[in-house]
Amino acid sequence: MTYYKDIREFVKTLEEHDKLARVKREINKDTELMPLVRWQFRGLPEKQRKAFLFENIVDVKGKKFNGPVLVGAHGASTEIYALGMMCRPEEIMEKWAWAQSHPIKPEMVGRGLCQEEVHVGKGLLEHGGLMEFPVPISTPGFDAAPFFSASNWVTKDAETGIRNVGNYRAMVKSPTRTGINCVFPQHIYQHWDKCRQKGIPLQAAIVVGVAPSIGYVSITKVPYGVDEYEIAGGIGGEPIELVKCKTVDIEVPATAEIVIEGELPTNFIEREGPFGEHTGYIHSHGRRPYFNVTCITHRKNPVYTAFISQFPPSESSKISQISDNAVLYHFLKYTRGIEGIRDVCWHEESGSWQFVAISLKKAFPPQAWQALKGADALDPQRGKIIIAVDEDIDARDPDSVIWALCYRMQPHRDILVTMGKSASLDPSSAPPGAEVPPGYQGVDLPTSSILIDATRKWDYPPIALPGKEFMEKAKKIWEELALPELSPKIPWYGRSLGNWLKKFEEEAELAVKGEYLETGERIAKEERIGS
Amino acid sequence: MTYYKDIREFVKTLEEHDKLARVKREINKDTELMPLVRWQFRGLPEKQRKAFLFENIVDVKGKKFNGPVLVGAHGASTEIYALGMMCRPEEIMEKWAWAQSHPIKPEMVGRGLCQEEVHVGKGLLEHGGLMEFPVPISTPGFDAAPFFSASNWVTKDAETGIRNVGNYRAMVKSPTRTGINCVFPQHIYQHWDKCRQKGIPLQAAIVVGVAPSIGYVSITKVPYGVDEYEIAGGIGGEPIELVKCKTVDIEVPATAEIVIEGELPTNFIEREGPFGEHTGYIHSHGRRPYFNVTCITHRKNPVYTAFISQFPPSESSKISQISDNAVLYHFLKYTRGIEGIRDVCWHEESGSWQFVAISLKKAFPPQAWQALKGADALDPQRGKIIIAVDEDIDARDPDSVIWALCYRMQPHRDILVTMGKSASLDPSSAPPGAEVPPGYQGVDLPTSSILIDATRKWDYPPIALPGKEFMEKAKKIWEELALPELSPKIPWYGRSLGNWLKKFEEEAELAVKGEYLETGERIAKEERIGS
Repeated sequence: MTYYKDIREFVKTLEEHDKLARVKREINKDTELMPLVRWQFRGLPEKQRKAFLFENIVDVKGKKFNGPVLVGAHGASTEIYALGMMCRPEEIMEKWAWAQSHPIKPEMVGRGLCQEEVHVGKGLLEHGGLMEFPVPISTPGFDAAPFFSASNWVTKDAETGIRNVGNYRAMVKSPTRTGINCVFPQHIYQHWDKCRQKGIPLQAAIVVGVAPSIGYVSITKVPYGVDEYEIAGGIGGEPIELVKCKTVDIEVPATAEIVIEGELPTNFIEREGPFGEHTGYIHSHGRRPYFNVTCITHRKNPVYTAFISQFPPSESSKISQISDNAVLYHFLKYTRGIEGIRDVCWHEESGSWQFVAISLKKAFPPQAWQALKGADALDPQRGKIIIAVDEDIDARDPDSVIWALCYRMQPHRDILVTMGKSASLDPSSAPPGAEVPPGYQGVDLPTSSILIDATRKWDYPPIALPGKEFMEKAKKIWEELALPELSPKIPWYGRSLGNWLKKFEEEAELAVKGEYLETGERIAKEERIGS
Repeated sequence: MTYYKDIREFVKTLEEHDKLARVKREINKDTELMPLVRWQFRGLPEKQRKAFLFENIVDVKGKKFNGPVLVGAHGASTEIYALGMMCRPEEIMEKWAWAQSHPIKPEMVGRGLCQEEVHVGKGLLEHGGLMEFPVPISTPGFDAAPFFSASNWVTKDAETGIRNVGNYRAMVKSPTRTGINCVFPQHIYQHWDKCRQKGIPLQAAIVVGVAPSIGYVSITKVPYGVDEYEIAGGIGGEPIELVKCKTVDIEVPATAEIVIEGELPTNFIEREGPFGEHTGYIHSHGRRPYFNVTCITHRKNPVYTAFISQFPPSESSKISQISDNAVLYHFLKYTRGIEGIRDVCWHEESGSWQFVAISLKKAFPPQAWQALKGADALDPQRGKIIIAVDEDIDARDPDSVIWALCYRMQPHRDILVTMGKSASLDPSSAPPGAEVPPGYQGVDLPTSSILIDATRKWDYPPIALPGKEFMEKAKKIWEELALPELSPKIPWYGRSLGNWLKKFEEEAELAVKGEYLETGERIAKEERIGS
């Protein structure tokens, strides 16, 4: 089966899998839309979450819009993300790893649906410029404006010409101007800074409403210098089709719903925000670049697509989680060659940025530290708390990770605290209004990380659960008694972890034969000493 | 209403509240019983868990027993524990704190049901001694014998005469001998060691099958020198009625199902275990004291009561969690006077021994450290990972605690690693067979703890969720659309945490009026600078 050609094909798939809530009632994009979708992240288990398609949109002044608004379509849940990857949830990691190792170059095509309507030059404002689109307010009560959230920014390195596609918020500041929140080491900021040094503006296009693979690569931290379109091609198994923009030297997906072309001046910066962020806090500080629109093109009745981010868990924390799990998994297992890597999980409570657990089967003792240090090195903005666990721990389950922390590590021996981070948007970094240290302009403030080796350092006694045969027999009795249906967690039976004597094994066998008094006698005779 | 007079009254209450599973089918105590109950801890949500009453017990050799076996009655879930406390779940902490501040002395009575049948002297073995009771094997496949698990040991300090009631496992070693697993600083071990120094044995009684208040205090780490019967009296609001033992100078609850009297020699120790422990691992090492039975008394057809422990969560981790939450809460809030303490939670994944979160509203900045250090000082065996969080964090929810760790602490600034622990049964402390350091005989090996201040150090920006009015309005729309029923988590709306400018508040108001372009204009004019 070929990959989704556009977001509309994907919406059909979501609906076929009962993963779409279609809302026909009138909804106010500024005050009602995001709070409504928010409820499913504060009040429903993940499996019940859906994408929302709002078909009847007004703004707070009563203005109506031509197209619908789509929220949660990329990653309201792991199941939805898996549909976007065209695979089962448990196959996502390896499919993502394959795409990174097998990128496919995009293909230029002559024309694209994304340019069905063109507003440029004197006609730029004929439909209101940016006001034509139903951009919702994400955090009514706190955000200073509507922000584009599923906005994929396409730019190029002024020296190498290599493209970047990245997800950055875009504050609506005028009908032809948006903000952007970016700092070092983010890739668009590196592009912007290279143009600044050359004294030229940075050309860009914001693309909204694309096949999900492009949304996934856009939000993912792939290495600088990798063209995200190629990875998206790898995910879909076929090239992304691109068209040239009308006013800038940038290529955009031919079937995108909306394309906004323009330039970021590099001689000025201005205040951006406030906006609710993935940290769970409103982000308000920062002078940042901004974007002047030169042309707007779109499909007829475009599907305006938004991510719901802010307080985790959210759609953005789910997309970040899965995509960045895949990047770290690929990096540790295939780039660094740590064969025993079993799983990697950025926990959503950090917006999937600061808490990561890595499970592995160590080939030799310090390999846990190789994984920890690799994860720490990946991105200065990510990974405040990095934990390595054994392969029998569920890296995705906080309960399982906490169990490992409690009995497989010693704080004085298995912990490293290190500087060298600049955690994005982290209010714990410094007091409000703190001076930015010299050299840190255009960067976040300096912060630290903690690496914890919670793997077993030697053979362990058996897991304290009845042996498998006893648990299996008991399950039959459980079912015979018509007790409530079980959803077993691992581990559900005991087994040796290496430190178990033949003697103890024999005693356990005697015990279930009812011959345990033999053991008691032997202890009195052979294992009693003066105190 | 008066408190439960015995475990039988409490079983009736459990059944009335649909918290009892009565099993009439024949069950093998050695191979089937514990694995069956185990399944509810590996496969059911906490609210569905019940106590189990097995009415038709055989052992592996086909022997039948007179009384039933009761498991999970004290704490298979928080709801069951609350029934045992005669209060609602949310009242447990304050009721426990009250009992600690208002102990009630027990009362001696002339005779007790616990002595309906007496086996002593030449008659000690007339019903088989300890073999009379259906003691289950907790971890078939690994345990070396049946162990008493809900065994409340009553002993006295040889110098002060002050009683101790403590829960310790008791390995069945012969019809008249059991093991016990105890080390410093456990209270019975302190009693034993004082007798050892005097060259006399330690008298003791094991009490099985008591009103739940006695089970709760027995498993709880109250300070050395406090008589647990008095706290149990405080919980029930009336004195515990006691009778004198027949062969030792010990007092036991008059309505207990089973009382085993005897002495612990102090001139010899012997091997004890293996037994599956609350850490989730089999515990096998250790030469320990043992117990010679001098007399057995019991009610007719006694209700043999067991705890299910081993891999967490379990009944033992739930009882430990609630009781030790209460002890730490009482200690920090009332003994140390930290008024702002809101909640305390020992997480069950550590068997409720090693991972604790404390939520508080700080009255001054270092108060988080006062709480952390207080918790660390409480018990050398407990608290490897101790985390302080603000009052708006749910100390019981790992997701909420992880969120606090990610954005309210910096590892290089807010963490203290310290030695001075000897974490009980912790396999991470040293390799198998490691030498015990000089001075550590009779103690666990030296270990460390990590204290983390994850409270806000200054004013924070608002929580990134829509304001309350928007969330409330959206909930009405949610219900109107007949979307799935919500179980909201906190927080579910945004609010300022102190760092929020009047200017931003006004801009947010403009935004939801649709006047956000005014803000964009003002930014261009007033907040744009050269880059």
